[in-house]
Amino acid sequence: MKVDLNADIGESFGPWVMGDDAALMEVITSANIACGAHAGDPDVMAASMARAQSHNLGLGAHPGFADRQGFGRRRIPMAPSEIANMITYQLGAAIAMARAAGGTLRHVKLHGALSNMAAEDLTLARHCYEAVLKVDPDLILVAQSATALEEAARALDCNWAGEIFADRAYNDDGTLVSRAELGAVLHDPGEIATRITEMLREGAIITRSGKRIACRIDTICVHGDTPGAVKTVRALRDALTAEGIALERF
Amino acid sequence: MKVDLNADIGESFGPWVMGDDAALMEVITSANIACGAHAGDPDVMAASMARAQSHNLGLGAHPGFADRQGFGRRRIPMAPSEIANMITYQLGAAIAMARAAGGTLRHVKLHGALSNMAAEDLTLARHCYEAVLKVDPDLILVAQSATALEEAARALDCNWAGEIFADRAYNDDGTLVSRAELGAVLHDPGEIATRITEMLREGAIITRSGKRIACRIDTICVHGDTPGAVKTVRALRDALTAEGIALERF
Amino acid sequence: MKVDLNADIGESFGPWVMGDDAALMEVITSANIACGAHAGDPDVMAASMARAQSHNLGLGAHPGFADRQGFGRRRIPMAPSEIANMITYQLGAAIAMARAAGGTLRHVKLHGALSNMAAEDLTLARHCYEAVLKVDPDLILVAQSATALEEAARALDCNWAGEIFADRAYNDDGTLVSRAELGAVLHDPGEIATRITEMLREGAIITRSGKRIACRIDTICVHGDTPGAVKTVRALRDALTAEGIALERF
Amino acid sequence: MKVDLNADIGESFGPWVMGDDAALMEVITSANIACGAHAGDPDVMAASMARAQSHNLGLGAHPGFADRQGFGRRRIPMAPSEIANMITYQLGAAIAMARAAGGTLRHVKLHGALSNMAAEDLTLARHCYEAVLKVDPDLILVAQSATALEEAARALDCNWAGEIFADRAYNDDGTLVSRAELGAVLHDPGEIATRITEMLREGAIITRSGKRIACRIDTICVHGDTPGAVKTVRALRDALTAEGIALERF
Repeated sequence: MKVDLNADIGESFGPWVMGDDAALMEVITSANIACGAHAGDPDVMAASMARAQSHNLGLGAHPGFADRQGFGRRRIPMAPSEIANMITYQLGAAIAMARAAGGTLRHVKLHGALSNMAAEDLTLARHCYEAVLKVDPDLILVAQSATALEEAARALDCNWAGEIFADRAYNDDGTLVSRAELGAVLHDPGEIATRITEMLREGAIITRSGKRIACRIDTICVHGDTPGAVKTVRALRDALTAEGIALERF
Repeated sequence: MKVDLNADIGESFGPWVMGDDAALMEVITSANIACGAHAGDPDVMAASMARAQSHNLGLGAHPGFADRQGFGRRRIPMAPSEIANMITYQLGAAIAMARAAGGTLRHVKLHGALSNMAAEDLTLARHCYEAVLKVDPDLILVAQSATALEEAARALDCNWAGEIFADRAYNDDGTLVSRAELGAVLHDPGEIATRITEMLREGAIITRSGKRIACRIDTICVHGDTPGAVKTVRALRDALTAEGIALERF
Repeated sequence: MKVDLNADIGESFGPWVMGDDAALMEVITSANIACGAHAGDPDVMAASMARAQSHNLGLGAHPGFADRQGFGRRRIPMAPSEIANMITYQLGAAIAMARAAGGTLRHVKLHGALSNMAAEDLTLARHCYEAVLKVDPDLILVAQSATALEEAARALDCNWAGEIFADRAYNDDGTLVSRAELGAVLHDPGEIATRITEMLREGAIITRSGKRIACRIDTICVHGDTPGAVKTVRALRDALTAEGIALERF
Repeated sequence: MKVDLNADIGESFGPWVMGDDAALMEVITSANIACGAHAGDPDVMAASMARAQSHNLGLGAHPGFADRQGFGRRRIPMAPSEIANMITYQLGAAIAMARAAGGTLRHVKLHGALSNMAAEDLTLARHCYEAVLKVDPDLILVAQSATALEEAARALDCNWAGEIFADRAYNDDGTLVSRAELGAVLHDPGEIATRITEMLREGAIITRSGKRIACRIDTICVHGDTPGAVKTVRALRDALTAEGIALERF
């Protein structure tokens, strides 16, 4: 039994630093690297790709809306073809950056509002994923389990990885509990580790009410932008290892 | 005997149109497509790649400084490694865009101030070209003849194409006559056609004073952004054809 | 009897030209000048302010979403306070630019998606207008008649101008007929002139079905971005003058 | 005897935080607030103006090149008139933001490469300052002592404040020792406090070699972007107060 740990990397920009990427890259197995649109720039990308490659992490593109001020978290109304062009552009940049760093881009994970929109809209999800596969049909699509992203990935003849979140509570329909609600985000490292281990053993998302939603779990999304985040990830790694679950990139 | 005609394409942006690309693509053989930094955006790139591909033009990337307001014509002070990252980024985007349009990127030509700086600085030219070849060693570098760009291309084990300008006068050292000087830009279609035909026959740049600078001429740069530009290119095509010089992408 | 003709001005950006501002400024009485966010830049603004001032036009700010690629036509989800800050910022820039050109900013008109959103949402309209008046309580708010913009302007103790569109058909509820529908945009100069003259005489919007919606009409919005646009405005001016309606800035 | 302490404020952008502005604003008397070009955005500006106003700090504009990735530290080649337009634009935004926060903009200090360029070039300095005074002739120009900025300010009939740096060593010609040299930046709070107190008493810059350059010292520039920075400023305040030098905005 094995699982991957993925995190968003390379979200600094010009003079502005975000997160402690160096520490985070010590504990994850796959890096979703921002593509210079919602965050990152060519220099940040180059440095992030090089460091991820030196840690032997899975190199991934993390495309998002070209909206730095909103950090790709605002839903920009665009036609599906425009969204596809935007993804193609950022993905190409990431592929070249990975190559320049001596590596190969392996996966793609959508960012922020783009991901949220596609998770709710099968047609959009399909447009996004088809744009990716047109550039390189071997890329692995990281799809949030129990959403339109998973449904779109399943329908395409492609490589994909089912993803759950380490620190987010789930509703009974498989969606994430809104951050506006109490208990939406888990903070206790022990609770996080126990819950994720259980989900992996059962091959299912365990919702807030205790309901099980069977799904493929290939990778766990962790975050590095809060103090203590890296410590939480370490605790999760230790718990998984203790349960005999190997940490390997998907 | 044969030669290529290249022009800058895809320099519109969002709601703003630049040039009559549709007409220009009827008369050239290679398209240098802006990469969304000094001009262009993912939608303009996608449309430009698709149209260029449908005309069977050579697809090229045209990277420049990420300076839309200055249209990539201002010299932005950046370290060579930063310039390399910038080129890698834009080149990757162009490769993906070409692929999404069902084509393959074949060449790279630097834009504006970036090209001017590299034409004067062998170290910078080499950095730029090495960045390109690291992403894809088969790409053809379009190098302005008799400049550091040509010198850098010759020194690398790579494909390259020597380029002259259809409508610009040359100094005796092979540099272009400054636009500030009278006679820097040629406007008469007949004069342009005669001069270029002569250069091709002699395999040399003919300077303003009549001096010959022997060089490889694989492609002629033409412009489409002035009224009458397409007509001038047509006249040049006719003159070349009449002289038995075939128009083919390099 | 008198009326003002307003048009959007200064929507070029860097190397990209939009519209024939020089011709348009010959025939209008008030200029809504883009503020460097959805369009324009400091140089375009400076030139536009100077030219508008030399024609003795009413100088206005035309703030919009900071979204050049989408030309301010995409609805960017922002909190009302964020929208207020955005307007304050752009308005301040316009006031300074008007002053540097030897003039004084007189009015403000919202652009594109920002205007459309506020026209439908009284709370947002009020937030926008309060942001304007906080900077300068003497500014004239140009409010689309029979919308939440007018309602918000009326509720504030301020100067405002009611606006109708020269070339757009109206629904019976006072909203504009969607551009997706046939007949949404009027093209015939004669028809436009007749219709506007009638509206001015009656002090009412005349809808597509012939219904009258009484409203204050201080200014007529005309466009300059289509071929023949300036000619249409000239025809409108002639018709109004012939009817004894003076053309004066509000 | 009294002096002002100024610092750059509001250099965060969208999701990215820079510096500990809240702590810094406790210890300074004037805030140079970034204008949304090299750093800041309308929301950051609004929050910075409000906080500075609530601390009764002098509100200032801190315009710089519109180059976020380079943080306004790259010399962008622009015509003097273009630089003037850029300053006018940003200054106007700052004036409106100050007003919206219930305050009044009092001073202007140029940022980064723009300041460095103008400090070396009297013509450019004059262009910059004339642009400021055209918008509001009462604004106070913060001019680096013993540079072209001071010379330009003196030549204009205007309010200006002479500025020295708390933590930078000076060459005998009054320029700052290059950061590339050892000892360019002072780190020891005690040494900084002693040196500044001495300069204030003597009314002169004391260079690295001990030379005195007589100049007006109205304000001392302090920085907040390094750990321990605020502590250093507190030490400086204490030392100045102990010497009977009052801390008051200029």
